[in-house]
Amino acid sequence: MSSWYQQDAAPISEEHRQRALARQGQLTKPPGSLGVLEHCAVALAALQRRDQPQLQRVAIAVFAADHGVAAEGVSAFPQVVTGEMVRNFSTGGAAITVLARELDARFQVINVGTVNPLPALPNVLDRRLAAGTENFCRQAAMSVELCEQALAVGREAIEAVGEADLFIGGEMGIANTTAASALACALLPASAEELVGRGTGVDDAGLRLKTQVIANALQLHASQLDSPFSVLRHLGGLEIAALAGAYIHSAQRGIPVLIDGFICTAAALVALGLNPGIRPWLLFSHCSAERGHRRLVDALEARPLLDLDLRLGEGSGAAVAVPLLRLACALHNQMASFDSAGVSRS
Amino acid sequence: MSSWYQQDAAPISEEHRQRALARQGQLTKPPGSLGVLEHCAVALAALQRRDQPQLQRVAIAVFAADHGVAAEGVSAFPQVVTGEMVRNFSTGGAAITVLARELDARFQVINVGTVNPLPALPNVLDRRLAAGTENFCRQAAMSVELCEQALAVGREAIEAVGEADLFIGGEMGIANTTAASALACALLPASAEELVGRGTGVDDAGLRLKTQVIANALQLHASQLDSPFSVLRHLGGLEIAALAGAYIHSAQRGIPVLIDGFICTAAALVALGLNPGIRPWLLFSHCSAERGHRRLVDALEARPLLDLDLRLGEGSGAAVAVPLLRLACALHNQMASFDSAGVSRS
Repeated sequence: MSSWYQQDAAPISEEHRQRALARQGQLTKPPGSLGVLEHCAVALAALQRRDQPQLQRVAIAVFAADHGVAAEGVSAFPQVVTGEMVRNFSTGGAAITVLARELDARFQVINVGTVNPLPALPNVLDRRLAAGTENFCRQAAMSVELCEQALAVGREAIEAVGEADLFIGGEMGIANTTAASALACALLPASAEELVGRGTGVDDAGLRLKTQVIANALQLHASQLDSPFSVLRHLGGLEIAALAGAYIHSAQRGIPVLIDGFICTAAALVALGLNPGIRPWLLFSHCSAERGHRRLVDALEARPLLDLDLRLGEGSGAAVAVPLLRLACALHNQMASFDSAGVSRS
Repeated sequence: MSSWYQQDAAPISEEHRQRALARQGQLTKPPGSLGVLEHCAVALAALQRRDQPQLQRVAIAVFAADHGVAAEGVSAFPQVVTGEMVRNFSTGGAAITVLARELDARFQVINVGTVNPLPALPNVLDRRLAAGTENFCRQAAMSVELCEQALAVGREAIEAVGEADLFIGGEMGIANTTAASALACALLPASAEELVGRGTGVDDAGLRLKTQVIANALQLHASQLDSPFSVLRHLGGLEIAALAGAYIHSAQRGIPVLIDGFICTAAALVALGLNPGIRPWLLFSHCSAERGHRRLVDALEARPLLDLDLRLGEGSGAAVAVPLLRLACALHNQMASFDSAGVSRS
C-alpha cells in the first residue's frame, strides 16, 4: 500500500519544452546569450504546459515549529524566538512578509508545533501537532504517526493554495539548522564535520558543540536510518516534514516549487528520498552562506540562481529570486524574433 | 586646465552610511543574514543621502555605434545589425526594452555613430558623430576631438535624465567586445590571450583571429597607450566613450550607477582611469559569460550581484539586477526592529 506522498508527480510537457527552446532560438539575441534566464523560461514553459510561462500568482507558506534539540544549546537564539517570529510574520515586520508584499504574493504561516501554544493571529493557521519535536539526542524526534501528520500538514497547505504559478516554502524554528544538518548527513551521506555551519550565528565553541550533538545523534539512531521516512522522523522537525510534504504535493498538483536555503534544501532531500519523481518540479533559488548548502545543491546537481551570502531562511532567498524568474518569462514572452524585427542573423 | 570629466564626484554621506548600518543591526534577523542585500541597502543609503534608500526612478540609456575593426571579421554578426537593433530598441522588441517596461524604467537610445545614418525613430536620439570608428588595426579609432565629443554625448545623456535613483548604461555595437577587450588589455594591463572571449558567438577560428587582431592593435599603438584618454581614443568605440562619460557625470550628479557586463565594465575601467574618485558610485550587476569579465571585476575588487551566464549586453544584465536592489531597499525600509516587534535577541 503506497502512501499519498509516493504518488506520481504531474507530467511535464516535452512538447512545450521543445517549442520554448525553438522560440528562444528565434528571439533577437545571440543564441544562448540570456544564459540561465533562458533555461528558466524553458523549464517553466514545460512545467506549466504553457507557451507563455508566467509567475503572477506566487504562493508562499512558512511552516514554524520548535525542536527538542534546542535544549542542547545549539542555537544563538533562545527557543522563545520561534513563537515571537510567528507573531512578527503575522504583523508583517519579518523579511519574508516584506518580500511577499513587494512580490504581491499570497502569504500564509502555519504553526506546525511551537513549544508553547499561540493565540489566534491573522495570517497564521494553527496546526500545532505537538510542543515541538523530542530531543533527537535522546530519542526519535517524532513518532511515526506524528511524522505522517506533519507531512500531511504540508499537503494540506498546498491544497489550500488553489491556483498558483509557483510555490515557495519557508521555515522558522530555533535549532532547525541542526536538524537539517543531521538529516542531510544521514541522506547524502556525509559526516557532521562536513556539513555543520553556524546557523543564525553560533561562535566557534557553539559550532563544535553542534557538530558533536549531530555526530552523537547519528550514532544513536544509526540502526534506524534505513529509509528516508525513518531518517525524517528520527532527525527531522515538524516544519521540515511539512515542507517535504508540501514540495511533494506541489509537484503532484503541477505547481513548480522554488526551493529556499539550507533547511529547505534538506527538506527537498527528504522529499526526493520519499518520491524521486518530483525532481523536475524543484527549482533552486540560491546558495546560502550556511556552510553545508553548497554540498547539498551539488549533490542535487542544482544550479541555484543567486549566491548572495543569505542565511536568514523564512523562504526569503527564494522570494528574492522571484523577480528574476518573472523577468525570464517576460523576455521569453515579449521579445521580438529576428524575422518580425527584421534583424539579420549571424 | 582640467576637463569636465576630471571634476569631483558628488560626496557620499558617511552619516547616512552609519545610520543604515545601525538600522540593519536592529532588524528582526540574525545580524548579517541578508548578506549582500544588506551591503547594497547601506551603500545606497550613503550614496543617496537618504535614511530610506529607494530605486523607483531607474534611467536606462543605451548607446549604439559601429566599429571599424568589424572589417577584420571579428564578429559573428554582420555590421548592419547595429542599426537593425537600434530599430528593435525603438519598437520595443529587444531584451533591454522588454526589461525597461517591466521595471517601469525610463528608456532612451542614443545613436553615437552607426555606420549608416538612420531615419528618425521614436525613443532614439540622433547624436551620430561619425560613420563608426576607424579600424584600430590601421590607425587610432578616434581623433582627440571625436573622442571628446563621444564622452560629452554621455554627459549630455545624464543631463537629460533629470531626477533619478539609479542609472544604467547599455551598449550596442557589432565588434564591440573586440574594442572592449583591447581597452581592458591596455588598462589592466593584460595580454589579448588572457582576456579575449567569444563575444556574440565566434567559433574557435574566430577567437584566434580576434586574439591576433587585438594583439596587433596593442603593438601598433603601444607608444600611444600612455593615458586612459589616449587608450580610449586609440582602441575604444564611440558608444564606449559615451558610456564612460555617462558614468562619470552620473557620479558627479550623485546618481548611483549599475554597471552591466563586459563592455560596460571596460567602459567603467576607462571612466575610473579618467576619474578614480567615481569608484564608490559604481555598483556591479553581474559577471557575464564573456571570458574576460571575471578578470575585470576582480581587478576592480567588485562583487557582482548575479552570475547567470548572461552575455547579451544592451544593459540587460544590469536591468535584471534592479529588482534585487529594490528588494534590498524594501527590506531595509520596511522590516520591524527587535524592539518594535518584541522579538528576543541572541
